[in-house]
Amino acid sequence: MDLLSRVRIVLVEPQHPGNIGAAARAMKTMGLRELVLVKPYKFPHKDATDMAVGAADLLESAQVFDTLREAVADCYVVGSSARLRSVPLKTTTPRELASRLAREVAGKVALLFGPERVGLSNEDFDLCHELVSIPADPEFRVLNLAAAVQILAYELRLAEAPDLAGAPERSPVDAREMELFYEHLERVLVAIKFLNPKHPRQLMRRLRRLYARAAPDENEMNILRGILAAIDGKGGEHG
Amino acid sequence: MDLLSRVRIVLVEPQHPGNIGAAARAMKTMGLRELVLVKPYKFPHKDATDMAVGAADLLESAQVFDTLREAVADCYVVGSSARLRSVPLKTTTPRELASRLAREVAGKVALLFGPERVGLSNEDFDLCHELVSIPADPEFRVLNLAAAVQILAYELRLAEAPDLAGAPERSPVDAREMELFYEHLERVLVAIKFLNPKHPRQLMRRLRRLYARAAPDENEMNILRGILAAIDGKGGEHG
Repeated sequence: MDLLSRVRIVLVEPQHPGNIGAAARAMKTMGLRELVLVKPYKFPHKDATDMAVGAADLLESAQVFDTLREAVADCYVVGSSARLRSVPLKTTTPRELASRLAREVAGKVALLFGPERVGLSNEDFDLCHELVSIPADPEFRVLNLAAAVQILAYELRLAEAPDLAGAPERSPVDAREMELFYEHLERVLVAIKFLNPKHPRQLMRRLRRLYARAAPDENEMNILRGILAAIDGKGGEHG
Repeated sequence: MDLLSRVRIVLVEPQHPGNIGAAARAMKTMGLRELVLVKPYKFPHKDATDMAVGAADLLESAQVFDTLREAVADCYVVGSSARLRSVPLKTTTPRELASRLAREVAGKVALLFGPERVGLSNEDFDLCHELVSIPADPEFRVLNLAAAVQILAYELRLAEAPDLAGAPERSPVDAREMELFYEHLERVLVAIKFLNPKHPRQLMRRLRRLYARAAPDENEMNILRGILAAIDGKGGEHG
């Protein structure tokens, strides 16, 4: 399933209904469709509908929950934060996050946005696997809620861009298959003495990045694994 | 002078004063400060001030002009357009534009946004050197005015400080180096008997596509060539 249909935008206790509508519009312009609200102050509301313009369908299909826990139960959870937090969680940028979600995370993803003034609470962060922070001017970091949704949605769309550019739809293999490939690759590189088995880290990390970018589909993965097997086989033939 | 202080955001005949305020806020979060208005319907206005939140200073310093020509007289002019136009102007994406403006264009830059419903007119386009179009869902392209300003401002900020993007700007090797790599790869695949030298075509085409997507930079290319050499070397060792 492509990234855009795997991402759920979760607004936690949004205070202004206008922002809910504007967020829905921001989502729809980038091809995101799943909006979830946790304890919205006012919803449904005329301001939300007015600001949604052509994205009122996302408001109609939006699910409303009483707790964040229920809203993200089936998801990989990413919290957004304007401030630098002293939270012991990995913090990433929208671009890096989008690229990683597209290539390395399978399944549903929930992207959380906190209440307008205060942001996500520590209890909300407890449910997050990682954080994302939009690079902003340190003197004035406070993006409007819908503007923050717009930037994240934009980066998610661009991470999908190779597929959206008109090239035939591709289905990269999942993270498990990539791991099996990396293991195989590492074994072979050690066997041909390219990789020092005591210090494989840095080189393997670079190769992982390279092949993650290529995002091989099943057919291509078969070719790559076939090449590795043939190298192994050659070793066997002569050894 | 850095890019952010060279860019002037020009709103042409904005209809809703709230959008002027929201655009000012979007600008300021990304470090842009120069706002110019051409024939705003209502300005100054309470809605503009309300939506600007902490960016009211940009509204106070905003210049207002009667004609677009005066507003951009000293600038390199880029028009934004949601639709695909039959305008004989180069059209680029926000990311590409920002990176090029940072590296190749000196002096002032004016970034134009048209009226909410209709966008820039053909007369406005006559004053533009090029166009920029935000990649959006073809089914629902209509970003809110301030949301469009937010995305452009965000890309300008990241172009100014690529390290903030999280995905550092990469410099893939050129086509010549890629061809040398493909030749080397083909030789090695024939040597390990993975590739039938009589029918290399289809498999090599697939591998080319895969590695073209990965777009290796120089460092990564050195690793790939090193691996190929090590496979060759192993053959030599035993053969």
